Amino acid sequence: IENCWARLAAAAWSVVKVGKEDPRRAIHSLKVGLALTLVSLIYYYHPLYTNFGATAMWAVMTVVVVFEFSVGATLSKGVNRGLATLLAGALGVGAHHLACRSGKTGEPILLGFFVFLQATTSTFMRFFPRIKARYDYGMLIFILTFSLVSVSGFRDDEILELAQRRLTTIFIGGAACVIVSIFVYPVWAGQDLHNLIALNLEKLGNFLEGFGDEFFKPPMDIDAETTENKSLRGYKSILSSKSTEESLANFARWEPGHGRFRFRHPWKQYLKLGALTREYAYRIEALDGYLNRNIQVPAQVREQIEEICRDLSSEAAEGLKELSLVVRTMTRGADNIGSRLENCRNAVKDLKALLKTSLWKDTDLLAVIPVLTVSSLLIDVVKCTEKIAEAVH
Amino acid sequence: IENCWARLAAAAWSVVKVGKEDPRRAIHSLKVGLALTLVSLIYYYHPLYTNFGATAMWAVMTVVVVFEFSVGATLSKGVNRGLATLLAGALGVGAHHLACRSGKTGEPILLGFFVFLQATTSTFMRFFPRIKARYDYGMLIFILTFSLVSVSGFRDDEILELAQRRLTTIFIGGAACVIVSIFVYPVWAGQDLHNLIALNLEKLGNFLEGFGDEFFKPPMDIDAETTENKSLRGYKSILSSKSTEESLANFARWEPGHGRFRFRHPWKQYLKLGALTREYAYRIEALDGYLNRNIQVPAQVREQIEEICRDLSSEAAEGLKELSLVVRTMTRGADNIGSRLENCRNAVKDLKALLKTSLWKDTDLLAVIPVLTVSSLLIDVVKCTEKIAEAVH
Repeated sequence: IENCWARLAAAAWSVVKVGKEDPRRAIHSLKVGLALTLVSLIYYYHPLYTNFGATAMWAVMTVVVVFEFSVGATLSKGVNRGLATLLAGALGVGAHHLACRSGKTGEPILLGFFVFLQATTSTFMRFFPRIKARYDYGMLIFILTFSLVSVSGFRDDEILELAQRRLTTIFIGGAACVIVSIFVYPVWAGQDLHNLIALNLEKLGNFLEGFGDEFFKPPMDIDAETTENKSLRGYKSILSSKSTEESLANFARWEPGHGRFRFRHPWKQYLKLGALTREYAYRIEALDGYLNRNIQVPAQVREQIEEICRDLSSEAAEGLKELSLVVRTMTRGADNIGSRLENCRNAVKDLKALLKTSLWKDTDLLAVIPVLTVSSLLIDVVKCTEKIAEAVH
Repeated sequence: IENCWARLAAAAWSVVKVGKEDPRRAIHSLKVGLALTLVSLIYYYHPLYTNFGATAMWAVMTVVVVFEFSVGATLSKGVNRGLATLLAGALGVGAHHLACRSGKTGEPILLGFFVFLQATTSTFMRFFPRIKARYDYGMLIFILTFSLVSVSGFRDDEILELAQRRLTTIFIGGAACVIVSIFVYPVWAGQDLHNLIALNLEKLGNFLEGFGDEFFKPPMDIDAETTENKSLRGYKSILSSKSTEESLANFARWEPGHGRFRFRHPWKQYLKLGALTREYAYRIEALDGYLNRNIQVPAQVREQIEEICRDLSSEAAEGLKELSLVVRTMTRGADNIGSRLENCRNAVKDLKALLKTSLWKDTDLLAVIPVLTVSSLLIDVVKCTEKIAEAVH
């Protein structure tokens, strides 16, 4: 019994965790319940039911299938479903009429041929990258509706009515989804994308901010994995954020204007910025490889280079945080960033000057290689920062 | 009109391109057409139709929605759909009976409450990472079927028959999908995952193989972007391969034994190997940053270090290719790899020895920093190679 309680507690805990990670999840669940209950009123309310009959189930189905987490995703699925049903329904009715003319034996053969041809072509079209990105669900519904309408026609002569009812109920279901998703605590994919990009820049900044301390800390402290390390490694999520960003941008394109975003907000710019951020993160990953390696740097070199490296990474970090703020607030703020970048460039100059001095003549090159590599990577990082700054403007 | 022709030609060309990229796509399209035509026989063949009536459309729907590219994905969706329908159907019938007892006014209220509660809970459960990965589609169908069965019950008293018919037709549709997808030119997700991992190791090898030539080639050749560069940059796809690998592994778990893979093949190992490959690719990306930079290395340094670096990268490349072969053929082949790794380690020793010599005393450190960084990254790369070799065994 105790085991059972422990399991229940663990389950309850994971529910709380999932909910806390993003409280909008709980709200989304309630919204789905609401939309579904609204649509099932068609069944309960007699005058409505006599109008639609059993086809009312299409409305229920549409709500379950179309309602997605963000407004953009819901709109994309709803519009896809609606248009595909309209088009495929019309074509299906046409195919049915054509097949009707070919007699009792010819009809099933011709219908079968149409269905086969249409399913094959549409399935193949789903492999086109462009169609896959935006109209994949529409193609699916196209195949579905065409097959249903044309094939049902073989048994049911009221095919036009069937197609029209299906369209109306799907429209009702889709409208319920879109209305609930826009007007009850909306979740905008565009806003999410915006926040994600700004957050990612900040995460890069967090790493660089902590990098100086971590890299130059005395070797004996290395075992003590502090909690700070977690915020340091936050950038890891950026490495694999490509697909998330792309789907958010795809959904954002469907969304109407909201908050500070107009209808045709340049979402593609965010993707470019995301790609640059990822390139940056690869550099950071390379830098990360030089942490906690118990590197013994000769004292006289260390003294000289530590300050410059710390300067460089903290200036780059500040620059990134400014950039993140600029993205987040959609302001210009060019002055601050300009001076930050100037500081970075100066630090790079200092570093290069230091490397030219005679300091290194007497040291063991092998021992200082990590420091040199890190310096070189930091110089690289500054270049990336400038690229991002350009892209932001 | 000419414009029109040009567009048509472009469209035709993109069809050929999509088909050539993976010829299995064309076959998959034909398979979908075949399964759909098979299932629509229910409509054409009279004795079958009298049995199912209009519910035959669930079979058509199931085929369109469940048939996926790989066997694993099809099985996963089919099993999810089947089980979810069974469970939700039973629960829906139960909810209907419970609601029936509460009189004419109580019934719709109670039904509405059940639907709301169920939809909310199930939608929230879809956010759990584990459920999302394997049972997302099942949860969707669960909400759908429960709502349909319980709500239809309000208008239709033959609810048990409805639920049972729905289950049978879905079973027929699912079976058609699974049979066609397994027995007609099957596409195994497991096999794809296997090939992808092996190919990715090879791509890393290709980069390292060409790296020596590219890095040390005379600056005047840099503008001539040869076609060779393309195979060099093949590794870029690895950087974002995480989600592909994860979904393939998820599907592979559903697949029965096929070819050289048993039913419970350790697919998780492939994910680990994939993660290591990706870490490796981040290093390679850092190395890539030092190509085509027009770096002028002092001649006397160059002579000394060029051979060792070339050696190092080509040995690591050979090692990777051997590892790729080991993965691909699932053999041991430990001897070859052992000696390759030994060679790598020797090259690293040589490199370190060279760095300790007095060669560097007279050179401008700033000028040789790129070479030093590259050396240090190459030493890193060798460590990664050893990690992968360990993981493969």
